[in-house]
Amino acid sequence: MASSLLTRQLAISLQQNLCLAAPGCRYVSRTATKTVSEFEYDAPSMKTAVPGPKSQELMRQLGEIQNVGAVHFFCNYEESRGNYLVDVDGNRMLDVYTQISSIPIGYNHPALIKVMTNPNNVSAFVNRPALGILPPENFPDKLFESLLSIAPSGMSRVQTMACGSCSNENAFKSMFIWYRNKERGYASPSEQEVGTCMINQSPGCPDLSILSFMGAFHGRTMGCLAATHSKAIHKLDIPSFDWPIAPFPKLQYPLEEFVRENAQEEARCLEEVEDLIVKWRQKGRPVAGIVIEPIQAEGGDNHASPDFFSKLRNIARKHGCAFHVDEVQTGGGTTGKFWAHENWGLDDPADVVSFSKKLLTGGYYHRDELQPDKPYRIFNTWMGDPSKNLFLSEVLNVIRRENLLEEVTRSGKALLQGLYALQTQYPHILSRARGQGTFCAIDACNDATRDSIMLKARNKGLFMGSCGEKTIRFRPALVFKEYHVHQLLNILNNILAEHK
Amino acid sequence: MASSLLTRQLAISLQQNLCLAAPGCRYVSRTATKTVSEFEYDAPSMKTAVPGPKSQELMRQLGEIQNVGAVHFFCNYEESRGNYLVDVDGNRMLDVYTQISSIPIGYNHPALIKVMTNPNNVSAFVNRPALGILPPENFPDKLFESLLSIAPSGMSRVQTMACGSCSNENAFKSMFIWYRNKERGYASPSEQEVGTCMINQSPGCPDLSILSFMGAFHGRTMGCLAATHSKAIHKLDIPSFDWPIAPFPKLQYPLEEFVRENAQEEARCLEEVEDLIVKWRQKGRPVAGIVIEPIQAEGGDNHASPDFFSKLRNIARKHGCAFHVDEVQTGGGTTGKFWAHENWGLDDPADVVSFSKKLLTGGYYHRDELQPDKPYRIFNTWMGDPSKNLFLSEVLNVIRRENLLEEVTRSGKALLQGLYALQTQYPHILSRARGQGTFCAIDACNDATRDSIMLKARNKGLFMGSCGEKTIRFRPALVFKEYHVHQLLNILNNILAEHK
Repeated sequence: MASSLLTRQLAISLQQNLCLAAPGCRYVSRTATKTVSEFEYDAPSMKTAVPGPKSQELMRQLGEIQNVGAVHFFCNYEESRGNYLVDVDGNRMLDVYTQISSIPIGYNHPALIKVMTNPNNVSAFVNRPALGILPPENFPDKLFESLLSIAPSGMSRVQTMACGSCSNENAFKSMFIWYRNKERGYASPSEQEVGTCMINQSPGCPDLSILSFMGAFHGRTMGCLAATHSKAIHKLDIPSFDWPIAPFPKLQYPLEEFVRENAQEEARCLEEVEDLIVKWRQKGRPVAGIVIEPIQAEGGDNHASPDFFSKLRNIARKHGCAFHVDEVQTGGGTTGKFWAHENWGLDDPADVVSFSKKLLTGGYYHRDELQPDKPYRIFNTWMGDPSKNLFLSEVLNVIRRENLLEEVTRSGKALLQGLYALQTQYPHILSRARGQGTFCAIDACNDATRDSIMLKARNKGLFMGSCGEKTIRFRPALVFKEYHVHQLLNILNNILAEHK
Repeated sequence: MASSLLTRQLAISLQQNLCLAAPGCRYVSRTATKTVSEFEYDAPSMKTAVPGPKSQELMRQLGEIQNVGAVHFFCNYEESRGNYLVDVDGNRMLDVYTQISSIPIGYNHPALIKVMTNPNNVSAFVNRPALGILPPENFPDKLFESLLSIAPSGMSRVQTMACGSCSNENAFKSMFIWYRNKERGYASPSEQEVGTCMINQSPGCPDLSILSFMGAFHGRTMGCLAATHSKAIHKLDIPSFDWPIAPFPKLQYPLEEFVRENAQEEARCLEEVEDLIVKWRQKGRPVAGIVIEPIQAEGGDNHASPDFFSKLRNIARKHGCAFHVDEVQTGGGTTGKFWAHENWGLDDPADVVSFSKKLLTGGYYHRDELQPDKPYRIFNTWMGDPSKNLFLSEVLNVIRRENLLEEVTRSGKALLQGLYALQTQYPHILSRARGQGTFCAIDACNDATRDSIMLKARNKGLFMGSCGEKTIRFRPALVFKEYHVHQLLNILNNILAEHK
């Protein structure tokens, strides 16, 4: 069902584009400067329980084609605006999960609609190129103006990919290639290596490993999955690699109240990392790279200190392993910095930084040495999608123009303060409130309570995500303001007050 | 540089959309019914050697960001039309490689531009959903009208993915899950399985394998790569799995002249397949699935007979392995059937059929039993991209309206006849012409000659692809007509006549 509201909005936008050439057109810049708060709704508005009857009927239809066990409800994206997601039954919810944290500046942001209606952009959507062999004329410019304008410290090279898993898989591959090139002294591979790699055997396909952390999530293709250890359902029945898995620090919150205890826990984990690197080298599966999230997300919103990451980075350097920071979920401004690793204050934070979700395209940055020595080693048909880079450029413009990182910091403080207040008020239900920017979380006393709170909240117009065993995670868009924080806290408070 | 031609074309299209509501607008249907032949150029037109000076300058710029060793030249996609690719130096080439076989109906097809300028479609581009949890209202309808309208025989289920590698990785995963569920009698996994899978160990992460073929290409993420055996540069330095690799038949061409010899060769390979299945079961790594391309593409355009595939499918059934047909390159009409496996004439051709490229979205069809028993087992953030489904629906409309499969069959016959004539005329240079539809190939006497012919052709306005060791592959769009075949053959003939 086409939305009349959006259609009207778009018709205006199309007319504005068409009158660009006409002198004195007073509508041209209005769409561009309109902020999302002028554009969006004021509050949630609920008409049925969720999923409503229309969602249920569509679920039945889709169930003929796919497993729909994970579907929450069906959406009317045309009518959704800013922080508010509208479903097919006309329910309008404050969305603090944002398509698993992948909507950067809210639904139907006018700036993004403008990208769609700019005639100069049509070709990028209609003719998807094989970027690795036949890039479009503006490709270097678009990379400079989008991804390279936000490159992590020490990195001037970036490779786009289609999704988060492909980004991490190819980052792993570039670490393996880099590691083996070092080992063979940058000489050409031997005939034996060339021969054995064709039949999956060592030394051509060497027994190298990636060290990952318990609780980590890096994706679901088979390389990424071997570094993922968040939930059994992701990994069960899929063959894997014998790679080392270190403990991720289990910290106590609020962090500032448990400085000494947390430092001890982090020291224990770092010691284990070094032990594992030595052990795996001894058993003939040397660690080519270490991969870690700045905050473990899917695994339960687990934090560690800047000191931990700084020391881990040094351990990687000391043992000749590449250091890969997976910012697929933490990147894009949600922690109040564009990259979560900026909070560590390091000039040389990583060898590889991967991204996806809020960046709208997958990919990874890397230091110069990590660039493959030959073409076609890191390659596939599409290698990303230039139409996503167009949207990303505009998202970055909006972030800068509307100072959204400051906004995130402000809203994040209000959100965390509110969560502290709630857990003080309901200590038998909630604990361990934690967060950076709006990347916040709180634990329920058990998974059943967590799930019950989430369902009640949804029926009252607040859509949240879960992670870990009993955690609620908050992943609003960057346009989530203090005003929305108070809406969220009010709904949560009402539910908790009624909770038995 | 924005193209004035395209901008004009688009401005007209936008105006047409805007006047949809106005009565009696005589432009509305013109764009829709315009065929690509009315729209495109007449012939190649060359201004510089390729890559020209502008491409070289852009290559230098992009070289600061990425390895550009695989870049041929930079393109002006705005000015490209139908079968003709225009580069940034103003060279216009007949393109029979089409972005590694991924452009289905030519550049800037008016029908696809119309998708972009339809206000009802904007939301699908601007709000990319997490399809697995919050699908849009029209998602089941769009799947029925696009992917399910072309579903392979026996399959009514489809899962979209972002690219070819993700499609094959997830198809492999669904075969592993299916296989283990069978093995445990559809009972719940044991505590030991749930525990061990979290640390990458058996039995939770079982020692299962996928049987693939020498010369195969199934993608470059680590699961796919373990089933890929086309070129060493793809696999070198990347850890892999101990999975069985069977020989793919090495047939003699033309197929109809070597029926007996080829049947013997195919029997030899099938015998080896059965031996490997038994051997890998004995060594504790049972074959959960067999994966094969209907025509090995990247590996050198290697064909096999319908009888071979039919017997292979029976072997899979006999040994309880899933049978996965990878149609990422062969699918989408290029062989004259929508799926290459239709040429086998089987009612039950496969358990899984994967696709990408010309389908514009990745994904795979599967039989009911291959659907995972629980949600979140086959899952990721985006699980495809509904905006690609919109384009695919329109591509399918064009294929039907313009009878493009018949066109492909006609052009393919003309192309293959022409290649036969050329190899007869230049037997010291060319041999082994082969093909199905326009999915054609011919071998040069060695790789240096092949590469030299391709570069000369490019400078004369014919852009082709290579595969295998010394093969030229033809992968035109479905709008490639007999008229274009003659252009191609004329250029090739001129080059061969001059070839020393």
